[in-house]
Amino acid sequence: MKYRVTVSYDGRGFSGYQFQPGKRTVQGVLTDAATVLFGKCSVIGCSRTDAGVHATGFVASIATENGCVPPEKLPYAMNSLLPDDIAVTAAEAAEERFHPRYDAKSKHYRYLIYDGRIRDPLLTGRAWHVVTPLDADVMNGAAQVLTGEHDFSAFCAAGSTAISNIRTIYMISVTRTSDGRCVAVDVFGNGFLYNMVRIIVGTLVYVSQGKLTKDDVAGLLISGDRSAAGMTAPPDGLYLTEVFY
Amino acid sequence: MKYRVTVSYDGRGFSGYQFQPGKRTVQGVLTDAATVLFGKCSVIGCSRTDAGVHATGFVASIATENGCVPPEKLPYAMNSLLPDDIAVTAAEAAEERFHPRYDAKSKHYRYLIYDGRIRDPLLTGRAWHVVTPLDADVMNGAAQVLTGEHDFSAFCAAGSTAISNIRTIYMISVTRTSDGRCVAVDVFGNGFLYNMVRIIVGTLVYVSQGKLTKDDVAGLLISGDRSAAGMTAPPDGLYLTEVFY
Repeated sequence: MKYRVTVSYDGRGFSGYQFQPGKRTVQGVLTDAATVLFGKCSVIGCSRTDAGVHATGFVASIATENGCVPPEKLPYAMNSLLPDDIAVTAAEAAEERFHPRYDAKSKHYRYLIYDGRIRDPLLTGRAWHVVTPLDADVMNGAAQVLTGEHDFSAFCAAGSTAISNIRTIYMISVTRTSDGRCVAVDVFGNGFLYNMVRIIVGTLVYVSQGKLTKDDVAGLLISGDRSAAGMTAPPDGLYLTEVFY
Repeated sequence: MKYRVTVSYDGRGFSGYQFQPGKRTVQGVLTDAATVLFGKCSVIGCSRTDAGVHATGFVASIATENGCVPPEKLPYAMNSLLPDDIAVTAAEAAEERFHPRYDAKSKHYRYLIYDGRIRDPLLTGRAWHVVTPLDADVMNGAAQVLTGEHDFSAFCAAGSTAISNIRTIYMISVTRTSDGRCVAVDVFGNGFLYNMVRIIVGTLVYVSQGKLTKDDVAGLLISGDRSAAGMTAPPDGLYLTEVFY
């Protein structure tokens, strides 16, 4: 029996998604809960989110030797066993061959930036605090050069093991949130290199701060020069929002 | 020299506002930071918020023997010393006789209720999770009987030492938040009894759930019977939002 589950978590308490001995990870915590329900089982995730990165629509599979829990009951069964910074929000039966990572067609990430002058303790770990006021329209204008199929080498952290750095961004949108306090960067793409969203966000913040121009951003897609792009935004503001299959 | 400061905090890490030996409190943490800046000093708050209650507009005074920090620099100086779940968001010079609690003319509390079927780990400790869908309009209708000057004995926890239970609610409004996921209860009043906002919220939730009627709520103001009101909502959803002088 294989389940497909949707998972939300506050990334602050986790050393990322992937299992690491002696560390508290999303995969470890999900596996612990599923093992109580099913005995021997295997949990596979859609992405290796980094430490401190959040999710509202992470997708994982739980493969078990029995299907003693009906899918519609699984969120409640899992949540009764999970700690309060993570929850299974939906579950359905999946085909045996379903693989959350390999089968993902596209993903939606959201990145939140709080640009108030003084830090907000209720946003600590939940948004990147940038102390200069940002211009969401200027950032959005520059962001549009990133849409389409490109070599995103300039937006990839050193140490990536990806075979190709070519990815497609379907849509990218920079808007101020309805309460006016944050800037949200929403990115939809067919795949993301290591730290790609965070480097895109760091680069767009540089554009708003006048350290880079829209033309510079276009140039990055040609040069592939990571050192000419912006800083890597911290994990705090990043949310894996949705995965499409 | 006396400063008036506005303070935000995530209440989850604090055993309430008031200093208690061996406990991490808002007053204790503020006093520790102010003592580094000023040496001997005295911190007084506008309210004794309970453990787990948050604030976005708490007001405190800091009385010092010297005024070595200009008020406009005080938030930055304090925040460099404060932990990341609390911040001073504004500061100004106050008159020597200013008292944050006795001088407060009215306060605004906001209470957030998340009524999704499945818990949201990003709202853990930040909103009360009620698993039945709530009707904000019905709650708002019942809430209106509470406006005006009344004896709020039915909305006061046992153990209160208040001399009189008569208070005035200027305005109370129950609305769904713009993202549609939460119900917000905003209460403006000239003073609040112990747990008053939390019992009001628990009572309004009972109205939405059909356990109490609007007439029952009106009856509570006459009977003063705490046991006939709703449950005390947990501290998680409560935010001291603004204090008026």
